[in-house]
Amino acid sequence: MTKTKRVLTLFLRFLAIGATIAAVIVMLTSHDSTQVLNLTFTAKYSNDQAFKFFVIAEAIACGYSIILLFTCSQTSLWRLVLLLDVVIAMLLSSSVSAALAIAHVGKKGNTHAGWLPICGQVPKFCDHVTGALVAAFAAAIIYFLLIFSSLYSVQNTLFL
Amino acid sequence: MTKTKRVLTLFLRFLAIGATIAAVIVMLTSHDSTQVLNLTFTAKYSNDQAFKFFVIAEAIACGYSIILLFTCSQTSLWRLVLLLDVVIAMLLSSSVSAALAIAHVGKKGNTHAGWLPICGQVPKFCDHVTGALVAAFAAAIIYFLLIFSSLYSVQNTLFL
Repeated sequence: MTKTKRVLTLFLRFLAIGATIAAVIVMLTSHDSTQVLNLTFTAKYSNDQAFKFFVIAEAIACGYSIILLFTCSQTSLWRLVLLLDVVIAMLLSSSVSAALAIAHVGKKGNTHAGWLPICGQVPKFCDHVTGALVAAFAAAIIYFLLIFSSLYSVQNTLFL
Repeated sequence: MTKTKRVLTLFLRFLAIGATIAAVIVMLTSHDSTQVLNLTFTAKYSNDQAFKFFVIAEAIACGYSIILLFTCSQTSLWRLVLLLDVVIAMLLSSSVSAALAIAHVGKKGNTHAGWLPICGQVPKFCDHVTGALVAAFAAAIIYFLLIFSSLYSVQNTLFL
């Protein structure tokens, strides 16, 4: 692995850590409440399983990226790292999609199922969820770039 | 690539085609209706964006796997195939998660958001969605195994 390649990988790992930390913090702080007929309703991430999964998945990806900062220079671990990168990329894309599906129902509702949109009542909560989704989507893209970069350098030696 | 490896890859590609075709067909045929106060409500996959995305993603994965049956023996394309396998694995895990998130609300509802469960009224629809999810989950696992198998054979030559 060349020095430029190492620096690029390190840069992408730091970006991934930043994006996943941002996604976790923004989702954890998503909170808003509204009053309907003197009753107070509170919207928070823990009200939905998909948002809980989102936080756990992003936290795992963040922890993995941090651990890797101390191990990525060991060539003997590259096979495992590449495989784990693929697992994390799949986990990140899963968490974004699950949270996005619920966020879409929260924004637009689903008239066929009788599920009303809630973003009109709790706009701050929806804004936070949108921010978290953008950060998590960026993290998924970064992980794809990391895999692309790793595969390119491995296969370059084999096939070119 | 050894002959055993080729046979294994071909077997996994056929399994992936079977699983994705099953997921698409079972989701497309998910249909049930119920009567509430003399009004008929129909549940079908096209009522939700996540289920539409699910069908499109599974169809893309299926088409890709079929195309690959005619190209996977060409060594020069292996870099591209590995990368596309990663993209398809991320797409499959995304589609399963998005559909699962909505299916979970359909099954259990979400009292905080005021979204009622619908599976009690349209059980056949929910059974079909569950079947499609199982098939799609299997397809995602198969794609991960394909990536694992490819990475193992590539890196085996480099690092062992």
